[in-house]
Amino acid sequence: MSAADSPLALGIDYGTGSGRVLVLDLADGRELAAVDVPYPHGVIEDALPGSGQPLAHDWALQHPLDYLEVIERGIPAALADAGVDGQRVVGIGIDVTSCTVLPTTADGTPLCLIERWAARPHAWPKLWKHHAAQQQADLLTELAQERGEPFLARYGGRISSEWYFPKLLQIHAEDREVYDAASRFIEATDWIVWQLVGDEQRCSCAVSYKAFWSADSGLPPASYFEAAATGFSSAAQKLGSAFLPLGARAGMLRPELAQRLGLGRVAVAVGNVDSFVSVPGAGVAQPGTLVTVVGTSICDMVVHPEQILLPGITGVVRDGILPGLYGYEAGQPAVGDMLGWYVGQLLGVDAGARSRRHDELEAQAGALAPGSTGLVALNWWNGNRSILADADLSGVIAGLTLATTPAEIYRALLESIAFAARRIVENFADSGLVIDRLVACGGIAEKSPVLMQLFADITGRSIHVPASTQIPARGSAMFGAVAAGVFGDINHAAAALAPEVRRSYAPDRAASTTYDRVYAVYRGLHDTLGRDHVDWLHALKALRRA
Amino acid sequence: MSAADSPLALGIDYGTGSGRVLVLDLADGRELAAVDVPYPHGVIEDALPGSGQPLAHDWALQHPLDYLEVIERGIPAALADAGVDGQRVVGIGIDVTSCTVLPTTADGTPLCLIERWAARPHAWPKLWKHHAAQQQADLLTELAQERGEPFLARYGGRISSEWYFPKLLQIHAEDREVYDAASRFIEATDWIVWQLVGDEQRCSCAVSYKAFWSADSGLPPASYFEAAATGFSSAAQKLGSAFLPLGARAGMLRPELAQRLGLGRVAVAVGNVDSFVSVPGAGVAQPGTLVTVVGTSICDMVVHPEQILLPGITGVVRDGILPGLYGYEAGQPAVGDMLGWYVGQLLGVDAGARSRRHDELEAQAGALAPGSTGLVALNWWNGNRSILADADLSGVIAGLTLATTPAEIYRALLESIAFAARRIVENFADSGLVIDRLVACGGIAEKSPVLMQLFADITGRSIHVPASTQIPARGSAMFGAVAAGVFGDINHAAAALAPEVRRSYAPDRAASTTYDRVYAVYRGLHDTLGRDHVDWLHALKALRRA
Repeated sequence: MSAADSPLALGIDYGTGSGRVLVLDLADGRELAAVDVPYPHGVIEDALPGSGQPLAHDWALQHPLDYLEVIERGIPAALADAGVDGQRVVGIGIDVTSCTVLPTTADGTPLCLIERWAARPHAWPKLWKHHAAQQQADLLTELAQERGEPFLARYGGRISSEWYFPKLLQIHAEDREVYDAASRFIEATDWIVWQLVGDEQRCSCAVSYKAFWSADSGLPPASYFEAAATGFSSAAQKLGSAFLPLGARAGMLRPELAQRLGLGRVAVAVGNVDSFVSVPGAGVAQPGTLVTVVGTSICDMVVHPEQILLPGITGVVRDGILPGLYGYEAGQPAVGDMLGWYVGQLLGVDAGARSRRHDELEAQAGALAPGSTGLVALNWWNGNRSILADADLSGVIAGLTLATTPAEIYRALLESIAFAARRIVENFADSGLVIDRLVACGGIAEKSPVLMQLFADITGRSIHVPASTQIPARGSAMFGAVAAGVFGDINHAAAALAPEVRRSYAPDRAASTTYDRVYAVYRGLHDTLGRDHVDWLHALKALRRA
Repeated sequence: MSAADSPLALGIDYGTGSGRVLVLDLADGRELAAVDVPYPHGVIEDALPGSGQPLAHDWALQHPLDYLEVIERGIPAALADAGVDGQRVVGIGIDVTSCTVLPTTADGTPLCLIERWAARPHAWPKLWKHHAAQQQADLLTELAQERGEPFLARYGGRISSEWYFPKLLQIHAEDREVYDAASRFIEATDWIVWQLVGDEQRCSCAVSYKAFWSADSGLPPASYFEAAATGFSSAAQKLGSAFLPLGARAGMLRPELAQRLGLGRVAVAVGNVDSFVSVPGAGVAQPGTLVTVVGTSICDMVVHPEQILLPGITGVVRDGILPGLYGYEAGQPAVGDMLGWYVGQLLGVDAGARSRRHDELEAQAGALAPGSTGLVALNWWNGNRSILADADLSGVIAGLTLATTPAEIYRALLESIAFAARRIVENFADSGLVIDRLVACGGIAEKSPVLMQLFADITGRSIHVPASTQIPARGSAMFGAVAAGVFGDINHAAAALAPEVRRSYAPDRAASTTYDRVYAVYRGLHDTLGRDHVDWLHALKALRRA
């Protein structure tokens, strides 16, 4: 198979601020081009587009047309950049942030695009990091505990406000008309696939991780939802009932769309979730390796042959990441976001100079010795996902003195990310799921060797960064190739198309010993402020909201 | 008595960074002129002048000639500014930071000015905020507890590293030659008076508050000091044994110095401590009023007719502030210093623009509603004096989110100062010493109406700021007037020369209610990190030092 006529797959990775289209050569795994298309409306946090309707605290929405813009502009641009004939494309796979969910009519029209609903905040897609449904998440957790719902154990014992049913319950409580008008509440990933193939074809992945569904036992009973709010069992119907497994083909790209984009007959994989595609995308197909996607936030994934119901994870799903294995998800909700806040918001660096300032702080922080800052931070700027699943926690910096420098705080923030990773790894180990090594991808894994070395020193495990800046899109392209029949399953695709290793980091023994001492303090603060006296940070958050 | 021939007094207030000379008209209490003389060497923290000998972490020294510069330059300048004849000056009083202590020969020559010792860090004056003697402070506290030394109860049960014997024990441990060569270890205030009058005349105030002496029982026994280190009982001899009471005359100004400065026959009061002179300086002579001097740090003082031995104060001394009453001292070691760190060090504002940036942040912070920041801070940037007396604590900010603004943090830092004040007031009240109102003076009391309103709202007490920017120097001038015999005692001087009220602040009921909720969180963090789990911040400080 020569490079000139080998089959290609497109992977589209929808992140928080932009979508990236990758052209992958299925003969040799070369990334021929990648095009980033920023969302014109970005993250909508202050006011609705058009109406200017203001949004409350903790809201985060998106515009559905921004997703289509990535296809219409990104695919032709990527093919042109790669200098390839679009007819060689055999498959497309997509992945999207999750749980990002929107209300639509029966034909898939987003309510927010209908004039009647356009000024209603609840008619818009709720982005994964919409955190205004904490009250609903707490209620659903309490009810599941009281009723002894068995599903709860698969989600670490606590329901996140980021998930499907808390977000719907908020709509049900706050705007019943929108709730009733919505024939569907659908994950953005499934909605985009619907636009690509012309049919509603939902994937089992998102519904398993974010909506309590399992292939064995389906959804929780209607009585559970009715206990939350009278009439709320209808939410289950709005979710649909047929879910295709990962690696399945959702259908073929609509011919008129294919023609407009310069493509031929293209298989489209069922929708996927941005973090999960990174596991095969990084070439990982075995248990014992934690894949950590380090960007705006962190998503951690690991597969394991057995189901272990452990606290503090955000989901365990059979076949959820790779077929034949249980997929476990954990994460940290503010990583790049926190560093960006520090440089842009607190230090007040102009947008144009921020990248250079990050580089300076990274260099200065990297020159500091372990423990020398005298600082420890809890990186809860956007709450805590693992292992506490509590969006009402907030960030802490301890150890400040009159001699503390901006670079020391930057290092403490980086360390806090690695301490949180250690807490997650230890939580797995406490339940018998042993992690031997880490694979890191995502923008910050590329940009911050200091953070990667901290991961190694603080977790005591080696870590490597694959030689690709497009790991999720690469994983999605692999799923596109599987949907097209080029590979028998995703494991074969991952093995054939695994990226090279760009850089490996081994723990430094002396640094690890020092960090054990700092970690003891981190752990004390973590457990005190996150558990024993969780009412303190909750009270501050409540006062801020009031 | 006409203004043209009324008697005048000079008050000299030696702060951390400069000395201020005030000319006070004793007929009507008018401040005729005030001149600020910055110390040429400032606070010496990195390396010794001359030799460049580097200093370890937590050191803070000063140059003794800087103190004389204030006299030589400041007095003639102040007289010239006031446009008065120096012959009208009848008395001088001085106050200095404490415990600021220096080793001298028997004739009062500072060791650091002798070539043989000039490159030895321990030969230099240790400024009050030299914090490198924490280990010695801890040892002296433990020994006093074990031995049941009764003096300990007068100092809140804990010995501060800022005090006399911890500083001397550090010298004894780390540079025995300097220790042995020092005939005297003398408070800077007493050393300056020595230079003025030509005789060693020590005041009872500093030795009572900082060196465990009392008029009733003298010093702790030699066996206590020997238990700390063999030979260390000699420290007591180096302190001297005759101490003059507050309000006494140390002597007359040396004639050759008087002539050089344009003065005539001038009585010099015994040396005093910068915070204590603020009580009469503010016109306060009665129990129940807390005088809080808000500057680089905070010193709190209150007088009471009875001796109450309560935890967490930094000293209770009969006649220590006003004759016939017990004087109580408490404080916060980083106030203006912390705000300065935030703007200068963290936000990186250029020196020339800092004052404007403080004003902007003050205005923005003042516009925020109570509780709206979602933040709470422990202002332990320089350790905690009251009520924990622990220099190894460090600062904490909790409640940070991606939406937190620089002005919100500034407000949280201001609030943390007022929360600490409430903790101190409550600590007094718990032992039956009830404080009804506050009087605030010092640079930040003038500059920050927002902080003053927070003091009122958070402590639930009214507070006023006197109409003088020179309260300590005013108090010292009053003592100079008493030394000259113009008034019978300091109480009469305080009554006759009390400054007007510039501005009063009353608690806002709604704000107080909200702050009660934030204070509950503050109190939880304070007690957890400052007591129950004090090992956490201590471990961070130890790692920073290592």
